[in-house]
Amino acid sequence: MRMYDIIRKKRDGKELSDEEIGFFIDGYTGGAIPDYQASALLMAICLEGMTDRETAALTLRMAESGDMIDLTGIEGCTVDKHSTGGVGDKTTLITAPIVAALGGKVAKMSGRGLGHTGGTVDKLESIEGFRTSLSPEEFIDQVNRIGLSVTGQSGNLAPADKKLYALRDVTATVDSIPLIASSIMSKKLAAGSRGIVLDVKTGSGAFMKTQKDAELLAEKMVTIGRAAGRNVTAVITDMDAPLGRSIGNSLEVKEAVEALRGKGGSDLMTVSCELAAEMMMFVSGKPKQECLIDVKRAIADGSALAKLREMTAAQGGNAEWIDDTDLFPKAEFSLDIISPADGYISHMDAEMIGTASVLLGAGRNKKDEPIDHSAGIILRAKTGDAVKKGDVTATLYTNDKSRLEPARKEYSRAIEYSDHPAERHPAIYSIIK
Amino acid sequence: MRMYDIIRKKRDGKELSDEEIGFFIDGYTGGAIPDYQASALLMAICLEGMTDRETAALTLRMAESGDMIDLTGIEGCTVDKHSTGGVGDKTTLITAPIVAALGGKVAKMSGRGLGHTGGTVDKLESIEGFRTSLSPEEFIDQVNRIGLSVTGQSGNLAPADKKLYALRDVTATVDSIPLIASSIMSKKLAAGSRGIVLDVKTGSGAFMKTQKDAELLAEKMVTIGRAAGRNVTAVITDMDAPLGRSIGNSLEVKEAVEALRGKGGSDLMTVSCELAAEMMMFVSGKPKQECLIDVKRAIADGSALAKLREMTAAQGGNAEWIDDTDLFPKAEFSLDIISPADGYISHMDAEMIGTASVLLGAGRNKKDEPIDHSAGIILRAKTGDAVKKGDVTATLYTNDKSRLEPARKEYSRAIEYSDHPAERHPAIYSIIK
Repeated sequence: MRMYDIIRKKRDGKELSDEEIGFFIDGYTGGAIPDYQASALLMAICLEGMTDRETAALTLRMAESGDMIDLTGIEGCTVDKHSTGGVGDKTTLITAPIVAALGGKVAKMSGRGLGHTGGTVDKLESIEGFRTSLSPEEFIDQVNRIGLSVTGQSGNLAPADKKLYALRDVTATVDSIPLIASSIMSKKLAAGSRGIVLDVKTGSGAFMKTQKDAELLAEKMVTIGRAAGRNVTAVITDMDAPLGRSIGNSLEVKEAVEALRGKGGSDLMTVSCELAAEMMMFVSGKPKQECLIDVKRAIADGSALAKLREMTAAQGGNAEWIDDTDLFPKAEFSLDIISPADGYISHMDAEMIGTASVLLGAGRNKKDEPIDHSAGIILRAKTGDAVKKGDVTATLYTNDKSRLEPARKEYSRAIEYSDHPAERHPAIYSIIK
Repeated sequence: MRMYDIIRKKRDGKELSDEEIGFFIDGYTGGAIPDYQASALLMAICLEGMTDRETAALTLRMAESGDMIDLTGIEGCTVDKHSTGGVGDKTTLITAPIVAALGGKVAKMSGRGLGHTGGTVDKLESIEGFRTSLSPEEFIDQVNRIGLSVTGQSGNLAPADKKLYALRDVTATVDSIPLIASSIMSKKLAAGSRGIVLDVKTGSGAFMKTQKDAELLAEKMVTIGRAAGRNVTAVITDMDAPLGRSIGNSLEVKEAVEALRGKGGSDLMTVSCELAAEMMMFVSGKPKQECLIDVKRAIADGSALAKLREMTAAQGGNAEWIDDTDLFPKAEFSLDIISPADGYISHMDAEMIGTASVLLGAGRNKKDEPIDHSAGIILRAKTGDAVKKGDVTATLYTNDKSRLEPARKEYSRAIEYSDHPAERHPAIYSIIK
C-alpha cells in the first residue's frame, strides 16, 4: 500500500477502505508518512468529503492510536458531555454535578481554552488548590467514590488526532465536517464513557456558524458514536450571544455556583438542564420529562451544589470558595461599557466578545500562555434587551490596566444597537439522536 | 500576507491575486514556506482549478525564479519546440535541423527520459562523443554560428518549478491542467525563444489520455505564452500508438536520420513536417502551405540532414555516425515478437510499450539511473496492420539478456489483436493558436 495512491483516490472523489485509512493514521502517527503527504490528503478530504463509513473508520483508528481509558471498573452508568466550544459556556460545571448527584458516573476529561473559547480546566484552576492533572488511578477511584471527576486530558489520548490537528491548523484544513467530527469523537471514544451528550453550538461565537452545519456535524458525530457502540445524543444550542452573564474563569465558576443555587439566567438554565436531562436519560432510562424533573430537584434540594463542593475538595480545591464565592480574588481594574443611546441591543458577536475576554487576559492565543483567572467580562445587557443612554451594558475586569482599552474597543465593535426590539434566539434549536 | 490565508482562499474556490501567487512561489522556493503548506495549496489547486490569469501569474513567477536565458544576442528569429512526452517521439531530431536549415534559430534545451517517455538528451548521447552539457556561452555562440543547438537544461532554469514538481510527484497533484501548463511554460519562457511550438500528445501513451484534455491543456499554454508576449502554437498529435517504428535511443536517432533522408514512415513524417512548418511560420511569416513546401524541400535537398550532421560535429559528436548509421553499436541480444494468429492489430498501448522499452534498459524509472543506448524496440506492425500467424510484429533489443523476458511479457500485454481491420487514428487532431 502506498500513501500516494491513497491521496490520489481521495483526490478523485473515491471512498477509502478501512485498511487505507488505517495505513494513513498509523503511518502518520508513527512518522513513516511525512506532513506534506498528510496535508495533501487532508485538503482532498476537505474538498471531496468522507462517507459515514470512512469517518467512523478514521475516528476509531485515531481513538485507538493511544491510550483507551478503561472505565469498566466503575460501577454504574458512565456518561460524558462535550461542547464544541463557545463563549461563557460553563455548562460542564453545572451539568456534571447534577448528573453525579442523581447517581450518574461522570468521568470527564476536559481541555484548556484556546482562542476565543474557554476551557473547563482553566475555570476549575481558578479555585485555590484545584488539581486538574490526576493520575488515571486517582481519576477512576474518585469517580467510583463520589461519582464525579473533571481532569485535564491524559498525555496519550488519541495522539493521532493531536498530530493531525496541529497540521490542519496550519494548512487551512480545519473546516471540514468529517474531520471535525472524527477529531472530537476520537477523544470521546478514547475517554471511555458509555453515554455521550454533545452540545453542538451554532451562531457567531461557534465554529459552526449556521444551524444547518451544526446539525450536519451533530448527525455525523451521533452516527460515529453509534457505530462504535456508544449511546450518543447531540443538542444543538445557541452561541450567537455568549451563554449566561459572565465570561472569564473565576467569573464563570461563580456564575455556575449561582446556577446550582437556582439563580442562573434563563438561557444558561435552559441549556444546562436540557444537557443534564439528556445525560440522565442514559443513566436512569426514564423519559425526558421525568429526567428534567429530577434535574430541577437536584438543583432545588442543593444536592448538585454539594456534589460540586465534594469534587472540589476531592481534587484539593478550597471548597470554602464554593460556599462563599466572594473569596475568589477580584481583578484590580475594571471598566464599564456605556450605552451610547436609547434603544435595544440588536446583535452581539460572541466571537468578538470572546476575543475581548482574551485581550483582558482571561484566555490565550497560543498554547501554554499564562492566564489571569479573575479577568473577564460581566454582561449587564444582552441581545434583545432595552438600554438607555448612559446605562452600563457590560463591565470588563483585568489585573493589567493596559489591557482595558484594547478590550473595550473589541467589545464595542461586537455590539450592535437598534431602535427596534430584536428577536431573541431560542436557547435550544434541536436534538439529534 | 500569510500562506494560511492563501491556502484557505483557494480551498474556498476563490481567485488568488498576483501578489499572493508571488508570495507563495518566492516563499516556497526560498524555503520560508514548508512542504506541508505547499502540498495543501497544490491539492486545493488540483480540485478547485485556476483561472487563466492565475495560471499566467504562476507561470511567470516560476519562470523568473531562476535564470532567464537571454537570446537577444542571437540574430534572427528564435524558435523552440516542446513535446508533452510520448513513446518513440524523435521529432526534435527531425524538426530542429529542418528549421535551422531554413534559416530559423533553434536554441533548444531538452530533458532526459523518465518513466515510459524518452528524452532528446539521452538520444543525442547515443552518438559517440556528443556533448549535451554546453555552457550558456557555447550554446548561444553555436546557435549564432549554425542556427541550431540542443543541450541539457541549465542548472538553474525555473528552480521553483523543479521544487514544486518534486512535491507534486509524491502528493498526487501532478494531474492538474493549470499546474501542468505552468510547469511546461515556465521552463519555455525561461529558455528565451520568441516563438514556441507545442506538440501536445493525446492517447494511451500520453499524459493527456483524451483529445479534450489535450486541447484544454494546449489552450491554457497558448494563453499563458501570449500573456507573456511570446508567439505560441500548439499541435495536438496522436500518441495512442508509438510514433514511428523505433523506440530506444540510438534506434530513434537512426530513424530520425532515415526520416531526414525522406524515408520516414507516414505518421512520423506527417507530425514532424507539421511541427516544422508551424515553427517556420514564426520564422518566415509565410502561409502554412508555403512553409510545408519549404520543409519538404529541406528534406529533399539534404540540407536538413546536413544541419543535423553540423550540430553533431559542433557538439563533439562523431558525425560519421550520421552519415553511416550502421556505425551505432548494436545490442547484443534480440527477441522477435510473433503474431499468435491471423488477423489485425486492433490496439497498441503506447505507455505499456514504453514500459517494455524501459525494461529492456532503454529508459529509467528513477533519475540518474544509467541507460543502455542501443536497447529498445523496432515495431514491424502497428495498429491497423494485417498480420499472419507467425509474423514478426516487433523485435526487442538489449545488452542484458535477463531483461528480454520481462519486456516480452509487457510488450505482449500491450498489443490487442482482432479479426477485423481497426481504424487508424489520424496523426494530427487539431492546431490551437
